[in-house]
Amino acid sequence: MPELRRDPITGRWVIIATDRSRRPSDFDREPVVTRPGRFCPFCPGNESKTPPEVLAYRPSGGVNEGGWTLRVIPNKFPALRVEGQLDRQGEGMYDRMTGIGAHEVIIETPDHSLTFADLPEKSIENLFWALRDRVLDLKRDTRLRYIVMFKNHGEAAGASIEHTHTQLIALPVVPKRAQEEIEGAKKYFDFKERCVYCDINRQELETGTRVVIENDYFVAICPFAPRFPFETWILPRGHFSHFEASDSAHLQSLARVTKLMIQKIDKVLERPPYNAVIHSAPLQEAPMQHYHWHIEVIPKLTKVAGFEWGTGFYINPTPPEEAAKFLRDA
Amino acid sequence: MPELRRDPITGRWVIIATDRSRRPSDFDREPVVTRPGRFCPFCPGNESKTPPEVLAYRPSGGVNEGGWTLRVIPNKFPALRVEGQLDRQGEGMYDRMTGIGAHEVIIETPDHSLTFADLPEKSIENLFWALRDRVLDLKRDTRLRYIVMFKNHGEAAGASIEHTHTQLIALPVVPKRAQEEIEGAKKYFDFKERCVYCDINRQELETGTRVVIENDYFVAICPFAPRFPFETWILPRGHFSHFEASDSAHLQSLARVTKLMIQKIDKVLERPPYNAVIHSAPLQEAPMQHYHWHIEVIPKLTKVAGFEWGTGFYINPTPPEEAAKFLRDA
Repeated sequence: MPELRRDPITGRWVIIATDRSRRPSDFDREPVVTRPGRFCPFCPGNESKTPPEVLAYRPSGGVNEGGWTLRVIPNKFPALRVEGQLDRQGEGMYDRMTGIGAHEVIIETPDHSLTFADLPEKSIENLFWALRDRVLDLKRDTRLRYIVMFKNHGEAAGASIEHTHTQLIALPVVPKRAQEEIEGAKKYFDFKERCVYCDINRQELETGTRVVIENDYFVAICPFAPRFPFETWILPRGHFSHFEASDSAHLQSLARVTKLMIQKIDKVLERPPYNAVIHSAPLQEAPMQHYHWHIEVIPKLTKVAGFEWGTGFYINPTPPEEAAKFLRDA
Repeated sequence: MPELRRDPITGRWVIIATDRSRRPSDFDREPVVTRPGRFCPFCPGNESKTPPEVLAYRPSGGVNEGGWTLRVIPNKFPALRVEGQLDRQGEGMYDRMTGIGAHEVIIETPDHSLTFADLPEKSIENLFWALRDRVLDLKRDTRLRYIVMFKNHGEAAGASIEHTHTQLIALPVVPKRAQEEIEGAKKYFDFKERCVYCDINRQELETGTRVVIENDYFVAICPFAPRFPFETWILPRGHFSHFEASDSAHLQSLARVTKLMIQKIDKVLERPPYNAVIHSAPLQEAPMQHYHWHIEVIPKLTKVAGFEWGTGFYINPTPPEEAAKFLRDA
């Protein structure tokens, strides 16, 4: 019997289609592989082919040259730019705004042949340090209200460059999905005087069926009402609303759980394309009791998208309890 | 300079990336074609290979045999079923419900070789009649609160069977996107005492830059803040909240504007895959002053999806004014 489930944060209902439940091997496979050897603007030696770096971890010193372990550059074709005035205008009943913001790329390794899951834990930790550094720097510009941090892995998930990298887009508005989560979490808090994510952590760790990994500071779960098969969330066990407030112990622990999670996804689903997004509180807000930052990972296993885009309604052929078991056992 | 635009109904901000504005020929082309000749369960003669029909337009009379011009059948692998009790349960903090509902397929023509845009206007009108008939029948079951009606055209847009068809899913809940639109429209109405969609019609017809087609009862526009390149909406000019309240003059006029719109999309974008969704008011509600049913059409031109799924934030490389001009001129 198919089942409808409600996401406790946003209130979104999804269909979990248990009748046609799909196992990992039922999905089309397009393993993501690297093919080094062709020209790549992100490879060492090509530093002059990218816009000048805004940050680099380079033990040897120097700027815009080799010797780096991680490099942050502005996107060559940015969706938004930092220069100019934040200008708000009406057009009859409509509202528009100049596209003030920033669009940056974090290159996580000089080694083109490695995929994200192959990176040493230290490189993944460096990625999180770099994101933290960039957020702390960008949030000083008070026009910027939100930073979306995301990774598109594999062409089918939207990566236009193969060399592993993460992106951030700083926005003068709070995107709809973030707003929905924050408002949903606020309603729950007003009603219960508890953070909904803290309650999720508590219940998931108690029942265990949807838990994939748990370590000192983090827990990785398949959420109760996932939109997509094998969707997973990584949540800090303690209550923090802002990713950038993470300390060094947390970032180390986060690197560990993230690497393990992606390795498990790679193993169970044969190196699928995926998207990972950090969900964090708006930049200019004080710490929030009701919101809890986290990472959402969505393997790209199904082609269909338009129906979901059109309706906000999702049919998921893999119950999260089964997905979690496959991932746990991997 | 890129621009941020706000959708006046849902409040969603999108980036219109004018800097890297893309023309129709800049997108990857995968024209959708039909390849008749292989076995197809939707073709005449194979009526016994599908679940028994729930409705058919068949001048000659008869049931589950040839001679039909349009046929409605339950989906062979339904996401939801009509049998059983609507059972609501908690699981700790979570909510679930049995998957009561219906999932049906409307086969719009016996002719496998035709795509939707090739159908005679009368067949498209019949599709709308059939949808209306099915909605009026299903809404008598008061457990059902919403019907999603959609068309996936082409494999890349999620069509698993090539023979042209439309689907409907009847749900015991109102999907999130519909809820957002209705709430957004309600806020606007409370503030202005006017329907936001009526105001959109008025402003668009006045300025004209985003209008593609206008006929006696309908207008087709590229909306001010579209999520996707060449996204188009078809709206009734008069105020109606429920699709199923449409009369015969409206359904005829709707068939005309829909056929022309899809023909234009096929011409400008070389027969792309697309999704079309009817957005209508919840079944069990009385006519609403603040909501206005309409159709949204989204050609599938870009691969990226995960970032948008993850964030609810959209970057659209084609300004709607340019898209509307291409479509108008086609």
